[in-house]
Amino acid sequence: MSERSFAFRLLAQDGAARRGEIATARGTIQTPAFMPVGTAATIKAMHPHEVRASGADILLGNVYHLMLRPGAERVAELGGLHRFMNWPHPILTDSGGFQVMSLAKLRVLDETGVTFQSHIDGSRHHLSPERSIAIQRLLGSDIQMQFDECLALPASDAEVERAMRLSLRWAERSKTAFWNDRNSPRDHALFGIVQGGVSEALRRDSAEALVAMGFDGYAVGGLAVGEPQEVMLRTVQATLAHLPRDRPRYLMGVGTPADMLESVARGIDMFDCVMPTRAGRHGQAFTRFGKVNLRNARHAADPRPLDPDASCSAARLYSRAYLHHLVKSGEILGMMLLTAINVGYYQELMRGLREAIEVGSFAATREAILEGWQSGEPDATV
Amino acid sequence: MSERSFAFRLLAQDGAARRGEIATARGTIQTPAFMPVGTAATIKAMHPHEVRASGADILLGNVYHLMLRPGAERVAELGGLHRFMNWPHPILTDSGGFQVMSLAKLRVLDETGVTFQSHIDGSRHHLSPERSIAIQRLLGSDIQMQFDECLALPASDAEVERAMRLSLRWAERSKTAFWNDRNSPRDHALFGIVQGGVSEALRRDSAEALVAMGFDGYAVGGLAVGEPQEVMLRTVQATLAHLPRDRPRYLMGVGTPADMLESVARGIDMFDCVMPTRAGRHGQAFTRFGKVNLRNARHAADPRPLDPDASCSAARLYSRAYLHHLVKSGEILGMMLLTAINVGYYQELMRGLREAIEVGSFAATREAILEGWQSGEPDATV
Repeated sequence: MSERSFAFRLLAQDGAARRGEIATARGTIQTPAFMPVGTAATIKAMHPHEVRASGADILLGNVYHLMLRPGAERVAELGGLHRFMNWPHPILTDSGGFQVMSLAKLRVLDETGVTFQSHIDGSRHHLSPERSIAIQRLLGSDIQMQFDECLALPASDAEVERAMRLSLRWAERSKTAFWNDRNSPRDHALFGIVQGGVSEALRRDSAEALVAMGFDGYAVGGLAVGEPQEVMLRTVQATLAHLPRDRPRYLMGVGTPADMLESVARGIDMFDCVMPTRAGRHGQAFTRFGKVNLRNARHAADPRPLDPDASCSAARLYSRAYLHHLVKSGEILGMMLLTAINVGYYQELMRGLREAIEVGSFAATREAILEGWQSGEPDATV
Repeated sequence: MSERSFAFRLLAQDGAARRGEIATARGTIQTPAFMPVGTAATIKAMHPHEVRASGADILLGNVYHLMLRPGAERVAELGGLHRFMNWPHPILTDSGGFQVMSLAKLRVLDETGVTFQSHIDGSRHHLSPERSIAIQRLLGSDIQMQFDECLALPASDAEVERAMRLSLRWAERSKTAFWNDRNSPRDHALFGIVQGGVSEALRRDSAEALVAMGFDGYAVGGLAVGEPQEVMLRTVQATLAHLPRDRPRYLMGVGTPADMLESVARGIDMFDCVMPTRAGRHGQAFTRFGKVNLRNARHAADPRPLDPDASCSAARLYSRAYLHHLVKSGEILGMMLLTAINVGYYQELMRGLREAIEVGSFAATREAILEGWQSGEPDATV
């Protein structure tokens, strides 16, 4: 087999915070990285070129949604997910484990996998480690995820352990399926997913077993599902202690800017979350000055932009009054601008953290960022 | 008074079709021109820079919508409509006459104007020729329209004549209000609106009376409200016979590409219509090959773009299968791309007509365009 495209390089470290680069066949991902979520083959309310211009090196697609509509085989016939959605850069796909538990109807889970009904049209489907990997290959995903069981919470310790051990067996089967494909392993990568709830012992067992199998990267799954931030961060920290330094670490489904800042501080390299896009469609903006609800009447006559120094032009060119007007009027452009502003801010935050780690100023940058969020407003003289 | 910014220049004529240029303080409008409709201070689902890139020299705003939300005084405080919506190019505003009759509740019309309730919150408002002109000045509109009465159809001949004569009196008052403002007339223009239903005699009376008053341009109102295309075109033709050659002629609320093609053939210079934007939000595309309903299942596996030679990149870069997927999934990006494709096609159509009139090939171009719409599909070898 020829040399693999996938590689991770640790460029710098500042405390536990890491600055790295993930090489893939479709381009390099600068880490820490935030991956916007393109559930149904689109980052909602953004043109792909805008997503790219925001600084995103990679986006996330969902096996569950795409297998139901338009179907993985259909996407493959049309040249793969990258071509389908006009995004020639890296794509990571979620394996479907999370969505099948949160969205699908009439789920029946057994050792082989999950049988379920589509939330769209009630049609019956089966997902297994083998089928999930096959779908991710059909989509052409650059970074594929093992199939896992994501528990609905609250769950007993015994349930958490049972699901974690099933996910380990599915990890093994995912890996076998991935490597049995002659072409996929050269250009693509496969990540394992650490489970185990908030139990440090279970997280250790899960991480050690996955590392023993050997994956291209490791994700921390099953967090940010309602637990307090400090519990999440403690679990992340405990988990990372058992993961190798020379592989990327991905905290799934996280999160708020503060969640990401604190997780980077503990050594996480990758994130994904619907928060910036979803909040943008609901009138909320993430900025250096904290979160702003544009629906609030106090913005109605405010001529100031959200952030005159933002990298995102939408945050500079439009007044708060205009954004308020669009949100109040239910205008699509309001969703478009706020989504772009939020994704832009998430990328700007990551860029700032990468630069800080490079020059060894992470602690000071973290303080400055926290201070900005507290301030609530740009300089009144602006 | 210093020299006015507004001027119309007829550059070429081919049959009755006219190629012209309207100079305004904010830039030049090439005619025949299509004006996308930005009802609530946004062309729905498009960034202003995309609207401009499509080739639009001017867009339309609505007095009725903007007076209700966010309010004309508010827009003025925020620097005017151009700055508010980040569109530094010319804007024409509709006077509110049409929307007050089609959208407002509990209308009471008398000689002074119309009292009505907002369709948004039920609040009471009054529109008169004087108030409409004051609002258009507050918005900073480059081309302002007289306030007129737009009848709900069907209406008796007597009703049509009564409304036409009231609109003439309101035209006079609109003109007085416009010229009584010391600043507005230098940088802005005022158009009169010919009414009179489909009666050639009433249209003539209306046109002659307006021309006697003298306006910067003349609109044909009250058409494309359900009458057959041939009736509309006959009325347009009869009306244009009574309008001066040296003023722009604007057919309000029109229309389909075919309506515009035939109206340009008869000497119309300007159009506005919600059709390209509204159709784009409902899964329909306008192309050189006719109208395409992307919701139709026959597009589900079609890898071809809508038009590989379109000036709009969205029509070239995305497959019909992808557009179908977005429309079926209710994705905002579907509305964004199809709106851009439609506005792009409308501008491309106008550009083609302008070039044809310049070189005297309007008749041949018209035939070629009609043939393209009949063909239904791009070349099968594409």
